[in-house]
Amino acid sequence: MKKHKIAIMGFGTVGGGTYDILTQNRDHIRSTQGVDIEVKYVLDRSAESLEKRGADKSLFCSDVDALAADKEVELVVETMGGVEPAKTFITKMLRAGKSVVTANKELLAKSWSELEPIAKENGCGLFFEASCVGGVPIVRALGESFQGDKVQSIYGIINGTTNYILSKMSAEGVSYSQALAQAQALGFAEANPTSDVEGYDAAYKLSILGSLAFHTSLPYQSIYREGITRVTAADIVNAKRLGYEIKLLAIGKRCGNDIEARVHPVFVEKNHPLASVSGAFNAVYLHGDFVGDLMFYGAGAGAHPTGSAIVSDIVKALCGKPTYCDFDNNGKLDKSVNLVGDFLSGYYICVTVDDKAGVLSRISTILSDNGVSIKAATQVPSDGNAATVVFLTHPSREHSVMRSLESIGKLASVRNIDSVIRVL
Amino acid sequence: MKKHKIAIMGFGTVGGGTYDILTQNRDHIRSTQGVDIEVKYVLDRSAESLEKRGADKSLFCSDVDALAADKEVELVVETMGGVEPAKTFITKMLRAGKSVVTANKELLAKSWSELEPIAKENGCGLFFEASCVGGVPIVRALGESFQGDKVQSIYGIINGTTNYILSKMSAEGVSYSQALAQAQALGFAEANPTSDVEGYDAAYKLSILGSLAFHTSLPYQSIYREGITRVTAADIVNAKRLGYEIKLLAIGKRCGNDIEARVHPVFVEKNHPLASVSGAFNAVYLHGDFVGDLMFYGAGAGAHPTGSAIVSDIVKALCGKPTYCDFDNNGKLDKSVNLVGDFLSGYYICVTVDDKAGVLSRISTILSDNGVSIKAATQVPSDGNAATVVFLTHPSREHSVMRSLESIGKLASVRNIDSVIRVL
Repeated sequence: MKKHKIAIMGFGTVGGGTYDILTQNRDHIRSTQGVDIEVKYVLDRSAESLEKRGADKSLFCSDVDALAADKEVELVVETMGGVEPAKTFITKMLRAGKSVVTANKELLAKSWSELEPIAKENGCGLFFEASCVGGVPIVRALGESFQGDKVQSIYGIINGTTNYILSKMSAEGVSYSQALAQAQALGFAEANPTSDVEGYDAAYKLSILGSLAFHTSLPYQSIYREGITRVTAADIVNAKRLGYEIKLLAIGKRCGNDIEARVHPVFVEKNHPLASVSGAFNAVYLHGDFVGDLMFYGAGAGAHPTGSAIVSDIVKALCGKPTYCDFDNNGKLDKSVNLVGDFLSGYYICVTVDDKAGVLSRISTILSDNGVSIKAATQVPSDGNAATVVFLTHPSREHSVMRSLESIGKLASVRNIDSVIRVL
Repeated sequence: MKKHKIAIMGFGTVGGGTYDILTQNRDHIRSTQGVDIEVKYVLDRSAESLEKRGADKSLFCSDVDALAADKEVELVVETMGGVEPAKTFITKMLRAGKSVVTANKELLAKSWSELEPIAKENGCGLFFEASCVGGVPIVRALGESFQGDKVQSIYGIINGTTNYILSKMSAEGVSYSQALAQAQALGFAEANPTSDVEGYDAAYKLSILGSLAFHTSLPYQSIYREGITRVTAADIVNAKRLGYEIKLLAIGKRCGNDIEARVHPVFVEKNHPLASVSGAFNAVYLHGDFVGDLMFYGAGAGAHPTGSAIVSDIVKALCGKPTYCDFDNNGKLDKSVNLVGDFLSGYYICVTVDDKAGVLSRISTILSDNGVSIKAATQVPSDGNAATVVFLTHPSREHSVMRSLESIGKLASVRNIDSVIRVL
């Protein structure tokens, strides 16, 4: 059996997890897949990271050009994260004809259209199952299943940190900042949580998954993005009272030839399969015009789930021919679709008003004048002659709701627009 | 773009659904997958079935040998179901070098090891995503993901009919026979429901999925099989009271090198993701040693979901090279595993006894003497000086529980062993 030599660039959590699998299950992979995979180099800043994970120090390598020049190395795993130097390093490897397996959603979302042509030119592949939803094979599914379907929508809980925080808020009634602090203490959130809590991470992944689902290039910059930092304990209470859970969803939706792409908190009905996806778990809920509704559920991150996806890509890369998405060629691109910023959605709106006659009626009139139809409304007194008004609307145009809110905010009797959260 | 000509053998629900997709989404498939697929023949008993589904009568063909001899036809879809004549027809197509895409779990479970070598000899492929769990790409996932993992367990709700019946019993408190009658009236169960309700269908699918998951040949005859016909309304009530739902599960479990494979009703804890899979929906819950827990959820049957899986296989077959499982060769078989009949499980046991002192104690003693430890027990009076005793046991050996029940059944004060259902 041929021995395939590979290298790992970046030996943090995911690089180390990949190494664990390749060493601990090497015999199993050899006997069931017919490939023998040996890690020849681990590229990192110092040999210490190797020692920490129990890897042999002799694998240590710090010279990326020497790595690229080593003809024995067939394939390179990139688990450094971030754009640079990952992009430069990957480019070197692809130019040297080595296939690259990456978990780097940020780089992929930003530079897929540059990197794929380099891979193609050099007859090697760029594999990225691990970039989205950890060990859940959703990239494979979108790329290699449903070829007969027009995917109509994907709804994803694809960021574990925010799902952990929202689940904590829902289960324990704590505030956003308390839940964040707990998540940080347990390692579910980073010291600087911006990329997760502001929805950047989810937008990168939606860019990748949406591009695959809709056969088009879905630039991450075009994705509407709103994080969870403004979700309050009161919103969670209101949601529960109305029969919902609040989730940060990544939404890609096809309406005729229009595609919407957005990341924001969403009221999800309690009996929807996504509502019970809690803690750091992830899920992608998909609707195809023929296959109907499907859900993929699993650990969205972590050394071993993500490492599992990487090893799967390594085996795929070593055993078969690379395939390409060709979104920027004219090959397999669905040119009929276009990205739109307006969309239909239900809305939860929470407003603090003066507790006096006529306020509810004035707000309702504004909504109605803008074509926004109310499904449910409650008004309860709060402190200091104020009242809290909660609306749920029927599906309405985003633009109409935003126009309404502008007018509502200008009403003398409206003290504050506390929250606006879309409804699935 | 090359036009690929294919044929469909069997034009019932699934064959017709496949045809719908290939015609309605032909342009979409062409533009996004780069393949143009044309149905040249539909093989069926009469042309009437074509007319019923709006297919052109000119496609009708009744001569399987003429079809096999037509060199223009690259690939054949088999949606006839059953063993014969499907097996003979598929064999003819494979021998003629045509790849076959099939939804036929019974045939596959019974004849995979005969058919795959014929495909291999003739340089063509045998594709069967549609044979298990409709449009959910679980065959792909088990074959082409998790290559780095040892799959430890799969738990599947993989029969829509029984899940529909059990969901109905749970939601409405009706009896098994009432729920079956409703399922038959709505087309969720066949006039002769044996294959579904006795667990044959699930066992066929488990044979296929388990073989893929554990890289071994898992003969369907070796699978322990028990249907849902003995599940009573009282069992459902007891399950709910104890915090469970009853589901028909197909279970494949690896314990070291031992594999258990069984299909039977199971108490599933209410907060387990499988507990909320209801109606005709299916799901497969999987645990890999590195990837952790995953669930795949979707429509398990129906013309279009199953057709979607077939079209996916058609595209795969036309665009790539076939791969083989080689379970009966020495190629990629995991020879370390062996199938075992004894296993650990919790048990729900419901017994009708004489309502007098000492009965509960005698039963408990028998269980204890056989090493079966009781987790919970309740005794409530029922009619005519009788009482109903319900036990939940801690995980115990199947053989020990069966031995205990034999002794319990012989006790003079035990009127009947009403139910024995395993607990997940």
